[in-house]
Amino acid sequence: MDVRNGQAYTTATYRLFDDKADFGKKAEGIAVGLTVGSWTDLPEVTKRKMEKHLGLVVSVDAHEPEGAAPGERYADITIAYPDANFSRDLPALLVTVFGKLSMDGRIKLLDLKPSSDFLSAFSGPKFGIAGVRDRLGIQDRPLLMSIFKSVIGYDLDGLREQFLQQALGGVDLIKDDEILFENPLTPLEKRVETCIGAARQAERETGQKLIYFTNLTGPTSKLRENARRAIDAGANGLLFNVLAYGFDALAELANDPSIDVPIAAHPALAGAFYPSPHHGIAAPLLLGKLTRIAGADLSLFPSPYGSVVMPKEENLAVQAALVDEALPLPKAFPVPSAGIHPGLVPLILRDFGGDVVVNAGGGVHGHPLGAAAGGKAFRQAMDAVAAGQDLAEYAKRHEELRIAIERWGVRHA
Amino acid sequence: MDVRNGQAYTTATYRLFDDKADFGKKAEGIAVGLTVGSWTDLPEVTKRKMEKHLGLVVSVDAHEPEGAAPGERYADITIAYPDANFSRDLPALLVTVFGKLSMDGRIKLLDLKPSSDFLSAFSGPKFGIAGVRDRLGIQDRPLLMSIFKSVIGYDLDGLREQFLQQALGGVDLIKDDEILFENPLTPLEKRVETCIGAARQAERETGQKLIYFTNLTGPTSKLRENARRAIDAGANGLLFNVLAYGFDALAELANDPSIDVPIAAHPALAGAFYPSPHHGIAAPLLLGKLTRIAGADLSLFPSPYGSVVMPKEENLAVQAALVDEALPLPKAFPVPSAGIHPGLVPLILRDFGGDVVVNAGGGVHGHPLGAAAGGKAFRQAMDAVAAGQDLAEYAKRHEELRIAIERWGVRHA
Repeated sequence: MDVRNGQAYTTATYRLFDDKADFGKKAEGIAVGLTVGSWTDLPEVTKRKMEKHLGLVVSVDAHEPEGAAPGERYADITIAYPDANFSRDLPALLVTVFGKLSMDGRIKLLDLKPSSDFLSAFSGPKFGIAGVRDRLGIQDRPLLMSIFKSVIGYDLDGLREQFLQQALGGVDLIKDDEILFENPLTPLEKRVETCIGAARQAERETGQKLIYFTNLTGPTSKLRENARRAIDAGANGLLFNVLAYGFDALAELANDPSIDVPIAAHPALAGAFYPSPHHGIAAPLLLGKLTRIAGADLSLFPSPYGSVVMPKEENLAVQAALVDEALPLPKAFPVPSAGIHPGLVPLILRDFGGDVVVNAGGGVHGHPLGAAAGGKAFRQAMDAVAAGQDLAEYAKRHEELRIAIERWGVRHA
Repeated sequence: MDVRNGQAYTTATYRLFDDKADFGKKAEGIAVGLTVGSWTDLPEVTKRKMEKHLGLVVSVDAHEPEGAAPGERYADITIAYPDANFSRDLPALLVTVFGKLSMDGRIKLLDLKPSSDFLSAFSGPKFGIAGVRDRLGIQDRPLLMSIFKSVIGYDLDGLREQFLQQALGGVDLIKDDEILFENPLTPLEKRVETCIGAARQAERETGQKLIYFTNLTGPTSKLRENARRAIDAGANGLLFNVLAYGFDALAELANDPSIDVPIAAHPALAGAFYPSPHHGIAAPLLLGKLTRIAGADLSLFPSPYGSVVMPKEENLAVQAALVDEALPLPKAFPVPSAGIHPGLVPLILRDFGGDVVVNAGGGVHGHPLGAAAGGKAFRQAMDAVAAGQDLAEYAKRHEELRIAIERWGVRHA
């Protein structure tokens, strides 16, 4: 339903729970109510004029098992919205398909299929998986990201030391904590200079490039300027709390040629949207498709392994949306996060494949021999998987991995 | 917990559902985890340095009834966050208190009490209830707002006629539909000129001032410019889909002296946040306190009377947050919306008092004698309440109200 009678349509799929509703009628009500407002009582001449603005019911897939308990009956409803009704930006699309409707009973937005015409307004990830790999010069293995242990209350020296230890372990990407804002101890430009200085120092030892994702914060109207300040100070990546600013803010950053570094989208606040079965926006759409359309090169989301959990099926659907070939935009790196330790690496690579960022905080810093050893243990675990070797077996000849496994074990499923 | 040892704190209250957790320990985990990261194992000298950044548990109010069924056990937890940890903007505050935490199990953000220091960065509503009343010259009655019936697919003449009929009925405020974006039929400036022209024409008949809230849309970086374009064309109010752009975008508009017209915040997408008992952000915080802090002069929210429902208790809590004297900012107008007809006016005024905007769409346009009669019926219903008269009795001498009551009835509770 991309084009019909020369008109472009964008479809939205909802799951609507209702114990009694006539789902077909409900779907018609959405298609008309969120577009032309009324239909059946319009004069024929008006109908002809309005037809290109009318929403259409694409499908109604009712789930009404025999003897369903109250609360179990639902339908997945897909509606096609004429692109003629909204401007080609994400706020307009979201307000059209789920503005008022989000408040209308137990309804969750599951998916969107923007028309090619709508998508043509977006350049998507400026670097994507391929571009980030090129920047690092790494084509043949998963990437390793690490997170500062603590940042609040630390001064530049404290941050520098943490950064250096992480970098010496051979990580590819280091990101700021998403709760590190502009502050007198580690102000933006000094923080960037300090961390990039530490990255260069580590590079002389490891021979390895590294991207540092500086947290981009501040007033909405200053985001571009702050991004440029960070980049001018040497930042070669940006972290962005996209949901706190809206998808359009990310889209504008990604679309700006002067912001010439990869952007990692942080899922802060995402839990306000996706976990309820009855309300909100499904994770694969929120953290997958919309984040990619808006232009994130990497998208972080809660892994299925750690303390902050998302069911594995949902996780893999987020990943699928980030790399789906059907979307005519560069692919974005999936970054399943939280609770990751070296003993999980074989499982992560089995679940997510090779185009994944293994992202660790405690699993790096909590290594008994320190953060540098933590990074090395992860890289050894990746090497073991690449060599097709059993992790425990490989660990016998690799001390950092051996100690990590003693600390956290190996998880097979 | 505003200030302690000379430090400002902002508190957040959560409802956390968990069948087994030690809520006290969980609260400590939040207070430490979302601030300094770790505490008990820090050296004393570091603790002294870090203490001013440490979150504090204010209260843990557990709800664990005897024989609670699975899913019923919860605690309301209040944590104080040092303002030193975040910059004075709403994205920083929200990411700090509910960024990662939103994804950590069944947890809902119920309330925030920003410190006076934090609040001092916000001017809040530029007009508020008092300023909007002054602009209209109406001090002694509730205001009446009406919404276009259909807007998509209409040209300027069609919009003008709809506007004029609404205005002739004596409404005080007319708002664009939130799904009307920049489009070739009714582009921003022409739309404003057309509608404001109709407002002037009606004013010559009714002698009454009117505010037209033009929908402010487009790319985030163009919002200010588009607002100015609308204002320069004559717009004397703006409608804004705040949740699609983030609270900070609203705060910047409200804080901009050149945007010298009232802003009405539309709740589009709010249903993605507030309805679940287990996830998201509570309506009184989302559509009440945060919307007011960000600077909306009016806040629309689903009424407890119509098809798009919110429980009355929650509705009144949204209102309370918009007018709470404890917040050192101008009060914002509550606009309970959806399903409003003239027969509901006594109930609305009983529930919400006099500082309310009665907001109607179908209740104006669906009047058997047309939209102008619809507006008059609402004004007659307000007059009846002001005169302390029974609606049905008053309707005997007021035709428009009589016919409205024949159509929709009178609801007493």
